[in-house]
Amino acid sequence: MKARVHIMLKTGVLDPQGEAVRHALGTLGFEGVTGVRQGKVIELDLAETDRAKAGADVARMCETLLANTVIEQYDVELL
Amino acid sequence: MKARVHIMLKTGVLDPQGEAVRHALGTLGFEGVTGVRQGKVIELDLAETDRAKAGADVARMCETLLANTVIEQYDVELL
Repeated sequence: MKARVHIMLKTGVLDPQGEAVRHALGTLGFEGVTGVRQGKVIELDLAETDRAKAGADVARMCETLLANTVIEQYDVELL
Repeated sequence: MKARVHIMLKTGVLDPQGEAVRHALGTLGFEGVTGVRQGKVIELDLAETDRAKAGADVARMCETLLANTVIEQYDVELL
Protein backbone atom coordinates (compact mmCIF):
# COMPACT_ATOMS: atom_id res chain seq x y z
CA MET A 1 0.00 0.00 0.00
CA LYS A 2 1.16 3.52 -0.77
CA ALA A 3 0.62 6.55 1.46
CA ARG A 4 1.23 10.22 0.78
CA VAL A 5 1.81 12.64 3.65
CA HIS A 6 1.58 16.41 3.28
CA ILE A 7 3.38 18.42 5.93
CA MET A 8 2.75 22.17 5.99
CA LEU A 9 3.52 24.89 8.50
CA LYS A 10 0.46 25.66 10.61
CA THR A 11 -1.56 28.74 9.71
CA GLY A 12 -0.03 31.74 11.45
CA VAL A 13 3.50 30.32 11.48
CA LEU A 14 5.80 32.50 9.38
CA ASP A 15 6.97 30.73 6.20
CA PRO A 16 10.14 32.51 5.02
CA GLN A 17 10.77 29.92 2.30
CA GLY A 18 7.30 30.48 0.81
CA GLU A 19 7.79 34.23 1.10
CA ALA A 20 11.10 33.97 -0.80
CA VAL A 21 9.37 32.00 -3.57
CA ARG A 22 6.59 34.61 -3.77
CA HIS A 23 9.15 37.39 -4.07
CA ALA A 24 11.13 35.51 -6.73
CA LEU A 25 7.97 34.88 -8.75
CA GLY A 26 7.21 38.61 -8.56
CA THR A 27 10.63 39.54 -9.91
CA LEU A 28 10.12 37.05 -12.77
CA GLY A 29 6.93 38.86 -13.80
CA PHE A 30 4.31 36.63 -12.18
CA GLU A 31 2.38 39.49 -10.60
CA GLY A 32 -0.83 37.70 -9.66
CA VAL A 33 0.63 35.53 -6.89
CA THR A 34 -0.68 36.84 -3.58
CA GLY A 35 0.59 34.14 -1.26
CA VAL A 36 2.87 31.10 -1.24
CA ARG A 37 3.27 28.39 1.39
CA GLN A 38 5.87 25.68 0.98
CA GLY A 39 5.76 22.30 2.62
CA LYS A 40 6.95 18.72 2.27
CA VAL A 41 5.37 15.72 0.67
CA ILE A 42 6.53 12.24 1.63
CA GLU A 43 5.47 9.14 -0.30
CA LEU A 44 5.74 5.88 1.59
CA ASP A 45 5.58 2.31 0.28
CA LEU A 46 4.14 0.16 3.04
CA ALA A 47 4.12 -3.62 3.44
CA GLU A 48 0.88 -3.31 5.47
CA THR A 49 -2.25 -4.10 3.45
CA ASP A 50 -4.94 -3.21 6.01
CA ARG A 51 -6.02 0.40 5.35
CA ALA A 52 -6.99 1.22 8.94
CA LYS A 53 -3.74 -0.15 10.35
CA ALA A 54 -1.65 1.54 7.64
CA GLY A 55 -3.33 4.88 8.36
CA ALA A 56 -2.67 4.52 12.10
CA ASP A 57 0.98 3.53 11.45
CA VAL A 58 1.60 6.54 9.20
CA ALA A 59 -0.01 8.89 11.75
CA ARG A 60 2.41 7.51 14.37
CA MET A 61 5.34 8.04 11.97
CA CYS A 62 4.26 11.66 11.55
CA GLU A 63 3.97 12.22 15.30
CA THR A 64 7.34 10.66 16.09
CA LEU A 65 9.55 11.62 13.14
CA LEU A 66 8.12 13.17 10.00
CA ALA A 67 6.40 16.31 11.33
CA ASN A 68 7.27 18.83 14.01
CA THR A 69 3.77 19.04 15.45
CA VAL A 70 4.57 22.23 17.38
CA ILE A 71 4.65 24.23 14.15
CA GLU A 72 3.58 21.81 11.42
CA GLN A 73 0.35 20.06 10.52
CA TYR A 74 0.19 16.83 8.57
CA ASP A 75 -2.37 15.16 6.40
CA VAL A 76 -2.25 11.45 5.52
CA GLU A 77 -3.69 10.16 2.27
CA LEU A 78 -3.76 6.42 1.47
CA LEU A 79 -3.48 5.65 -2.24
CA MET B 1 -7.92 30.73 -7.00
CA LYS B 2 -5.62 28.35 -5.17
CA ALA B 3 -3.17 25.95 -6.78
CA ARG B 4 -1.12 23.15 -5.27
CA VAL B 5 2.07 21.97 -6.95
CA HIS B 6 3.77 18.68 -6.10
CA ILE B 7 7.43 18.47 -7.04
CA MET B 8 9.09 15.06 -6.78
CA LEU B 9 12.37 13.67 -8.03
CA LYS B 10 11.87 11.72 -11.23
CA THR B 11 11.75 7.93 -11.03
CA GLY B 12 15.30 6.62 -11.17
CA VAL B 13 16.87 9.71 -9.61
CA LEU B 14 18.48 8.82 -6.28
CA ASP B 15 16.63 10.36 -3.32
CA PRO B 16 19.08 10.42 -0.38
CA GLN B 17 16.66 12.45 1.78
CA GLY B 18 13.92 9.84 1.33
CA GLU B 19 16.44 7.07 1.98
CA ALA B 20 17.49 8.76 5.22
CA VAL B 21 13.84 8.96 6.32
CA ARG B 22 13.33 5.27 5.49
CA HIS B 23 16.37 4.33 7.53
CA ALA B 24 15.28 6.51 10.47
CA LEU B 25 11.80 4.95 10.41
CA GLY B 26 13.42 1.49 10.50
CA THR B 27 15.49 2.36 13.57
CA LEU B 28 12.31 3.64 15.27
CA GLY B 29 10.67 0.24 14.78
CA PHE B 30 8.56 0.92 11.68
CA GLU B 31 9.68 -2.20 9.85
CA GLY B 32 7.09 -2.32 7.09
CA VAL B 33 8.30 0.73 5.17
CA THR B 34 9.86 -0.49 1.94
CA GLY B 35 10.44 2.82 0.20
CA VAL B 36 10.29 6.56 0.84
CA ARG B 37 10.44 9.45 -1.63
CA GLN B 38 10.46 13.02 -0.37
CA GLY B 39 9.39 16.03 -2.38
CA LYS B 40 8.04 19.54 -2.08
CA VAL B 41 4.53 20.86 -2.07
CA ILE B 42 3.90 24.53 -2.88
CA GLU B 43 0.51 26.15 -2.33
CA LEU B 44 -0.10 29.30 -4.35
CA ASP B 45 -2.83 31.93 -3.94
CA LEU B 46 -3.52 33.37 -7.38
CA ALA B 47 -5.38 36.52 -8.37
CA GLU B 48 -6.27 34.83 -11.69
CA THR B 49 -9.84 33.44 -11.76
CA ASP B 50 -9.79 31.68 -15.16
CA ARG B 51 -8.87 28.02 -14.55
CA ALA B 52 -7.18 27.41 -17.89
CA LYS B 53 -5.07 30.56 -17.64
CA ALA B 54 -4.19 29.85 -14.00
CA GLY B 55 -3.09 26.33 -14.90
CA ALA B 56 -0.91 27.61 -17.73
CA ASP B 57 0.60 30.31 -15.47
CA VAL B 58 1.49 27.79 -12.76
CA ALA B 59 3.03 25.42 -15.31
CA ARG B 60 5.23 28.32 -16.51
CA MET B 61 6.20 29.08 -12.88
CA CYS B 62 7.25 25.44 -12.46
CA GLU B 63 9.30 25.46 -15.66
CA THR B 64 11.09 28.72 -14.84
CA LEU B 65 11.53 28.63 -11.07
CA LEU B 66 9.80 26.05 -8.91
CA ALA B 67 11.07 22.77 -10.36
CA ASN B 68 14.40 21.63 -11.73
CA THR B 69 12.97 19.79 -14.71
CA VAL B 70 16.22 17.94 -15.37
CA ILE B 71 15.71 15.79 -12.29
CA GLU B 72 12.26 16.73 -10.97
CA GLN B 73 8.71 16.24 -12.20
CA TYR B 74 5.84 18.48 -11.19
CA ASP B 75 2.12 18.07 -10.98
CA VAL B 76 -0.28 21.05 -10.82
CA GLU B 77 -3.64 20.77 -9.06
CA LEU B 78 -6.11 23.66 -9.09
CA LEU B 79 -8.29 23.80 -5.96
